Amino acid sequence: MNFTMKEAIDVLERTPQTLEYFLSGLSDGWLQCNEGEGTWNVSEVIDHLIEGERNNWIPRLEMILQEGESKPFPPFDRYSHLNENSKRSIEQKLLEFKTIRSENITKLQTMIIPELHLELMGTHPAFGVVKVRELLSTWIVHDLTHIAQIVRVMAERYRMDVGPWEEYLGILKKE
Amino acid sequence: MNFTMKEAIDVLERTPQTLEYFLSGLSDGWLQCNEGEGTWNVSEVIDHLIEGERNNWIPRLEMILQEGESKPFPPFDRYSHLNENSKRSIEQKLLEFKTIRSENITKLQTMIIPELHLELMGTHPAFGVVKVRELLSTWIVHDLTHIAQIVRVMAERYRMDVGPWEEYLGILKKE
Repeated sequence: MNFTMKEAIDVLERTPQTLEYFLSGLSDGWLQCNEGEGTWNVSEVIDHLIEGERNNWIPRLEMILQEGESKPFPPFDRYSHLNENSKRSIEQKLLEFKTIRSENITKLQTMIIPELHLELMGTHPAFGVVKVRELLSTWIVHDLTHIAQIVRVMAERYRMDVGPWEEYLGILKKE
Repeated sequence: MNFTMKEAIDVLERTPQTLEYFLSGLSDGWLQCNEGEGTWNVSEVIDHLIEGERNNWIPRLEMILQEGESKPFPPFDRYSHLNENSKRSIEQKLLEFKTIRSENITKLQTMIIPELHLELMGTHPAFGVVKVRELLSTWIVHDLTHIAQIVRVMAERYRMDVGPWEEYLGILKKE
């Protein structure tokens, strides 16, 4: 196992500003493209990250601390942000993500004492028993998976443009 | 085709500072981990990006403008940065990447007039005839593929830590 609280927070606190730097001011061409029907554009990925900050990570941590394994987490709707159909600019969304992430890191540091709490258990509706350490590690890898998604969606836009180089560009490989 | 010079430069100029923000100050745990023998760690990916700025994109563009299709590009050694075995800090490497990228964007803007040059052709040692537009598009997708690689390498480090969530995290899927 590699998880440590310090290294985890090092990533959690960098993600919003990294995305803010990368995405602010980009054209709609980059922000509205997707990988085909039923896939998310960059702006929708940010909506999903905000939704996780609101309804997933901290509420589940609180539930483990308060209820232990006795009650399963309410299911997290991974598509709920698509119903909001928000017309806000990417800059407004990135600011909200940065703000709520910063608040959540403060909550995390207040709630969790690593020596005491990392092995505490809760109940996931699909997986059964899960640990605080697993939930926190997933928070970090969830950031990483969505950064990877953002650049993959953007790369897709140039699939035809790169011509024969498609063969060398791993990000354009279809899984 | 989606390539435009403006949108391409919008990405090229953001990549170094995005990576600088994301990676500066991270622990060696994050920067030195890899995906197993023969794979690159985060620091080696930055070396490779610097190598491309030095020996790939601009030199190949210059060759197309000067030689056209008459001479194939010298092959680009995608592993040459591994021989340097550089002991510099990640912050020094990121600064070099930012500096040389900025110089190269200036060269690109001086050298290439989109209305005149995008369809000019050169000869790739493996692919044969390629266009300026394809080379430039590849430069952007190459940035995106290596950002994806960086977060994938980091995610791998927590593969065991996330427990049963591995199933939901696309970035941990083995291809």
